[in-house]
Amino acid sequence: MTPGLTLTDVRLTPILVADPPLLNTQGVHQPYTPRLIIEVTTAEGVTGVGETYGDTKYLDLARPFAEKLIGHRITDLNALFTLVDEVAVDSSHVSGQVDVGGLRGVQTADKLRLSVVSGFEVACLDALGKSLGLPVHALLGGKVREAVEYSAYLFYKWAGHPEGVTAERDDWGAALDPAGIVAQARKFTERYGFTSFKLKGGVLPPEEECAAIRALAEAFPGHPLRLDPNGAWSVETSLKVAAELGDVLEYLEDPALGTPAMAEVAARTRVPLATNMCVTTFAEVKEAFTRDAVQVVLSDHHYWGGLRNTQQLAALCRTFGVGVSMHSNTHLGISLAAMTHVAATVPNLHHACDSHYPWQSEDVLTQRLTFEGGRVAVSDAPGLGVELDRARLAFLHRRWLDDDGALRDRDDAAAMRRADPSWVTPAVPRW
Amino acid sequence: MTPGLTLTDVRLTPILVADPPLLNTQGVHQPYTPRLIIEVTTAEGVTGVGETYGDTKYLDLARPFAEKLIGHRITDLNALFTLVDEVAVDSSHVSGQVDVGGLRGVQTADKLRLSVVSGFEVACLDALGKSLGLPVHALLGGKVREAVEYSAYLFYKWAGHPEGVTAERDDWGAALDPAGIVAQARKFTERYGFTSFKLKGGVLPPEEECAAIRALAEAFPGHPLRLDPNGAWSVETSLKVAAELGDVLEYLEDPALGTPAMAEVAARTRVPLATNMCVTTFAEVKEAFTRDAVQVVLSDHHYWGGLRNTQQLAALCRTFGVGVSMHSNTHLGISLAAMTHVAATVPNLHHACDSHYPWQSEDVLTQRLTFEGGRVAVSDAPGLGVELDRARLAFLHRRWLDDDGALRDRDDAAAMRRADPSWVTPAVPRW
Repeated sequence: MTPGLTLTDVRLTPILVADPPLLNTQGVHQPYTPRLIIEVTTAEGVTGVGETYGDTKYLDLARPFAEKLIGHRITDLNALFTLVDEVAVDSSHVSGQVDVGGLRGVQTADKLRLSVVSGFEVACLDALGKSLGLPVHALLGGKVREAVEYSAYLFYKWAGHPEGVTAERDDWGAALDPAGIVAQARKFTERYGFTSFKLKGGVLPPEEECAAIRALAEAFPGHPLRLDPNGAWSVETSLKVAAELGDVLEYLEDPALGTPAMAEVAARTRVPLATNMCVTTFAEVKEAFTRDAVQVVLSDHHYWGGLRNTQQLAALCRTFGVGVSMHSNTHLGISLAAMTHVAATVPNLHHACDSHYPWQSEDVLTQRLTFEGGRVAVSDAPGLGVELDRARLAFLHRRWLDDDGALRDRDDAAAMRRADPSWVTPAVPRW
Repeated sequence: MTPGLTLTDVRLTPILVADPPLLNTQGVHQPYTPRLIIEVTTAEGVTGVGETYGDTKYLDLARPFAEKLIGHRITDLNALFTLVDEVAVDSSHVSGQVDVGGLRGVQTADKLRLSVVSGFEVACLDALGKSLGLPVHALLGGKVREAVEYSAYLFYKWAGHPEGVTAERDDWGAALDPAGIVAQARKFTERYGFTSFKLKGGVLPPEEECAAIRALAEAFPGHPLRLDPNGAWSVETSLKVAAELGDVLEYLEDPALGTPAMAEVAARTRVPLATNMCVTTFAEVKEAFTRDAVQVVLSDHHYWGGLRNTQQLAALCRTFGVGVSMHSNTHLGISLAAMTHVAATVPNLHHACDSHYPWQSEDVLTQRLTFEGGRVAVSDAPGLGVELDRARLAFLHRRWLDDDGALRDRDDAAAMRRADPSWVTPAVPRW
């Protein structure tokens, strides 16, 4: 086989990127959030890029894994899962618990490994595409649509980070009530053309969030709306909200925490339930699907283990009559490009995908990806179709190096304590 | 994107290949069986080959589909499913019924389309691999094993086809009792090194087939054994056989027909049940998996819609804790190569695959694939790693052209009637 496709170099660059003060049930986004940029280089000198979580526990796994990959062929993607299993995971990093703080569902060693593999898989696919002159979607069986639709990801937010905290400024303003949310939605529409709206809930009492959704429904009649309190509600509260907003919601996302609670809610409402918290690994699928606990799974190539696993998840959903959409944690353009490539290949993607990208004023690309009419065009350029801006990468890495460690692990509760020292992670259900 | 990867020519060659008088519950294999050889050629002049069923109903669909593919990119594999949906299927060809005669499970328009797509998908992957200098397994994420294990596919058989029937001779001799089956198994072992054995049952009364399995267990102690009556038994008979052979069976394959009956058997035995009859489409998965009706799915890239769908099926099985193995109808070397490539990429393939290939004395390749120690080595040559023998292809096509139509549609009952004019397709359950 082509010897030029062997990996000769892997470079890991942890960075800190600016993040606005977006609120969720656990606290607030830090002013800077960690991401890991992965570059793989082949014997031919072709470099591919990937991106994943940058918290310490991911770095601790990515570093030994990167060493193992020297000499590995970039076409050998199935073998990545076996290889990564050989890397020990510090057990203090994981538990079998749902990690509400991280908002990423259950935290296990396997899932940690998959989150790391995903960044490398994307980098390998980018390098492979560049080597072969093919876009990543062609390596995934080809696009079935020319553009991928995203939703406006609305957040309750402050105008700025707490006083005394070093942070970048943003021009979105505060949004702490229905009028603020509607104004934010309008800005999203004007800037990016989004026509679906998702509100990150679990921040204010449910009746206030219902009022915000109601205000959105009035401002944008007929547009798909979603509300996601990150599992902050009891079954009864979830049912109350479902009853109140059933006429305007496209779906309700993770109203209650865990499959049993979601199954209970699902059994008693006709509002579809979506999740990126109770079905976040293949191990969680069987119970959730056989109990009809969820009607839409929000895939995320980061923690499902890459673009090819995302396609497998989509096939699972199609087979069980479950819808597919796409979840997003804070991410940059590399991941948005990766999401767009895989989303373009999934026939049963019938909902607009989530993306934090509009909130990220900083990126590591020479050219940012753009939304037109709420859509990202699927690139036909070789690989992902993005180019790394080395000066920006170095700048953001410098910020990571200069950090005293306070921001290297995302901790929304700790960030909230800078504004409110008495803040403790709310018990679930919060309402 | 690379313009050279566009299809400029598609060639379909129906052939008739020699088939020994192998018995099953419906009758006997015809002396010649139809297959369709598919060649796709790109603008660069690279040709890829695929193979699928050659019966009239497949040809009727493959011809208009082939026309649609001119100008299609060979990387656009996901789009094949949409394209084929645009081709009308003659409704006389399909029904919602389990097609016991064809031994291929339920027959629907969708499944017919997938069986046709699969041959084209394999041909496209072969052409793409050749264009890029990559083996097909690398286009599927890379092999996770160097060789794929197959099982010896034992059949009750006559020494030759009925008198007066034009046929090729075979040197396997008759096998109509336990001693004959054991002798056949020994020949398989000597010639190919197989260490797993599957007996096609449903031919003789269950007690005689149990005696054959018992004889195999004595002759090959500790080796994996399987028995497959193609759904010919009642639930009670299935349970009786399971009880009798439970200590030696790796699994019992399709003892009873359909998911409800299989679920009933599965609930009352600890012998794993395998199927290639009640789970043969994605639409059948949910019921079978949620009812725990089957413990092993025998995938078949022909009717699941290709190599990539086979990977998706394997992911489904892994997710639901269901085993994976591989089914085989009569096929040639192109399909064996395709099976080997995809099997090499499936981590959870824990059972030897079935293959009729040793029964096929004729092929369309310049060089036959070989089994060593019961395994086929995974080729690293570009594409499938096989080469078409045009003279052989022309010869076998000539046979198809010269046929008066009697053999162009496989009909095991009709073949049986040449020996026994009173033969009628047995009602199910037969025992």
